Amino acid sequence: MVRSILLRGFDQDMANKIGEYMKEHGVNFIRQFVPIKVEQVKEGTPGILKVTAKSTTGNQIIEGEYNTVLLAIGRDPCTRKIGLDKVGVKINEKTGKIPVNDEEQTNVPYIYAVGDILQDKLELTPVAILAGRLLVQRLYAGATTKCDYVNVPTTVFTPLEYGACGYSEETAMEKFGEENIEVYHSHFWPLEWTVPSRDNNKCYAKIICNIQDNERVIGFHVLGPNAGEVTQGFAAAIKCGLTKEQLDSTVGIHPVCAEVCMQSHLIAQLSEHSGVRC
Amino acid sequence: MVRSILLRGFDQDMANKIGEYMKEHGVNFIRQFVPIKVEQVKEGTPGILKVTAKSTTGNQIIEGEYNTVLLAIGRDPCTRKIGLDKVGVKINEKTGKIPVNDEEQTNVPYIYAVGDILQDKLELTPVAILAGRLLVQRLYAGATTKCDYVNVPTTVFTPLEYGACGYSEETAMEKFGEENIEVYHSHFWPLEWTVPSRDNNKCYAKIICNIQDNERVIGFHVLGPNAGEVTQGFAAAIKCGLTKEQLDSTVGIHPVCAEVCMQSHLIAQLSEHSGVRC
Ligand SMILES: Cc1cc2nc3c(=O)[nH]c(=O)nc-3n(C[C@H](O)[C@H](O)[C@H](O)COP(=O)(O)OP(=O)(O)OC[C@H]3O[C@@H](n4cnc5c(N)ncnc54)[C@H](O)[C@@H]3O)c2cc1C
Ligand SMILES: Cc1cc2nc3c(=O)[nH]c(=O)nc-3n(C[C@H](O)[C@H](O)[C@H](O)COP(=O)(O)OP(=O)(O)OC[C@H]3O[C@@H](n4cnc5c(N)ncnc54)[C@H](O)[C@@H]3O)c2cc1C
Repeated sequence: MVRSILLRGFDQDMANKIGEYMKEHGVNFIRQFVPIKVEQVKEGTPGILKVTAKSTTGNQIIEGEYNTVLLAIGRDPCTRKIGLDKVGVKINEKTGKIPVNDEEQTNVPYIYAVGDILQDKLELTPVAILAGRLLVQRLYAGATTKCDYVNVPTTVFTPLEYGACGYSEETAMEKFGEENIEVYHSHFWPLEWTVPSRDNNKCYAKIICNIQDNERVIGFHVLGPNAGEVTQGFAAAIKCGLTKEQLDSTVGIHPVCAEVCMQSHLIAQLSEHSGVRC
Repeated sequence: MVRSILLRGFDQDMANKIGEYMKEHGVNFIRQFVPIKVEQVKEGTPGILKVTAKSTTGNQIIEGEYNTVLLAIGRDPCTRKIGLDKVGVKINEKTGKIPVNDEEQTNVPYIYAVGDILQDKLELTPVAILAGRLLVQRLYAGATTKCDYVNVPTTVFTPLEYGACGYSEETAMEKFGEENIEVYHSHFWPLEWTVPSRDNNKCYAKIICNIQDNERVIGFHVLGPNAGEVTQGFAAAIKCGLTKEQLDSTVGIHPVCAEVCMQSHLIAQLSEHSGVRC
């Protein structure tokens, strides 16, 4: 059951491809419904649970019986009862999250916050770790580097794994203007999937470049086996200001999935595109 | 049977770790011997083959019986009978390979060569492809970019997969001087291996930096599952001039193997080192 869209905040083109893939592989999505009641109809393992759900766009009510109900509803910060009001630290009244500036400073200048607790930031372990390290280095070791919350690589461990770094296509268009971005992409077929003739050309890579800035790569997106492993190094490259030209002069590794990101495979989105096999 | 050393030309520290891993997993290496005779002792599937081998360091002769003999003896260029002498193109008399300058030009200025046929270059598909593309662009499209044969990522699909880009530790020491390089490294334990308690801390990452050049990364080496996928993006980063500082400000992806290359995991080789779990 999906309340609204899949993977809010992520590139929706990628998110929908994941949805399609899961659907093809037997996952039955009920879109735009939320559960409003779960009742145990039969005890035991497996038991039976009756779920009543309501449409998020109208008044329709549906029911269904399931063995297992798993709720993935996100996390809430516990900031309301720890005395932040006593020291004057402001929180977002609605979400409980703490707003900070780009140096992780709260509205009380000598109180800092890092990690999941931050408003409008990412909920990821290495982000919390790096932000903490950089903060300590700035406070006590004369460093100046701030945590970059844009070029954060992340991986969604969906059945078709999704790795991303930088802007989604939507955000890139919004920020730079549609005419100023160029999207290079390709479907691909991992070598190990060709043998069992599995999922021909369901894997996909997309690279978003800023035309105004030397075709610098501002978004990296890949769907396929080990997408997380593929993404980490490209995140380092993006930190180094990777341009399309530098990407094109990088030698590929054959045969790995990641080579799809190299010149001989990727083509501009507007051109006709054909799947490649890696 | 290994004639001399494992993976000549590759970082020997990495090569030996692969050897140790294979030995622990049941591969019985006979070192410094070459087969001099293979005889069929019994026909059928499996048949029996008697192999006679000679030491490469002395006169010792050994014999053994095997079901299967697989020879991995490399390739020879077929350059001797294609009339290169008629047009005056020089080849290396011993190896048959063709020497070229850094623009893939042979000694005859209007004859070029790319790919496996080249002397002292790499025998890899994407290298041949990229060198060919760049050559055509230089010859017919006014481009100037030459093929970079140093920062070529490559993967050895050994049981413990090995990905590398740039210099080996030996070559880096030779080229820049031991005192001018810093090596950062870590053993690691992929998350999916922790569950079956498999091969604790056998995976390994090593990054070689040039101290004289802003700790620029000149060698990248990783041993572990999907090492090739991990290596591709770092190769792009190295093409962008990746420094240790840029690597340290790149956010890791948790949990993937590639995050071991990030600041929180890697430590300088001279310090005491402890394995980490990713
Ligand atoms: C199911 C799940 C899966 C996840 N998977 C991943 C993943 O694969 N990769 C990834 O990068 N991230 C993942 N995350 C996110 C990751 O766990 C968080 O981003 C990370 O833990 C944030 O670190 P933090 O220090 O900000 O918060 P936390 O790790 O939540 O630490 C906050 C700590 O404060 C303690 N605390 C709270 N109130 C008080 C109090 N009043 N007094 C004292 N202590 C208090 C809490 O007990 C807790 O230990 C996952 C999260 C969940 C829930
Ligand atoms: C078993 C094996 C596994 C490999 N695995 C990998 C790998 O995983 N990844 C990787 O990157 N590389 C791999 N390689 C290396 C890769 O195949 C080569 O680097 C690549 O093919 C080189 O391309 P090339 O065009 O230089 O040579 P080739 O691909 O060898 O092409 C040369 C062509 O010239 C033709 N030819 C020869 N003589 C004549 C003649 N007189 N007239 C006309 N045509 C002629 C040949 O038939 C051949 O088709 C592997 C090689 C082998 C042998």
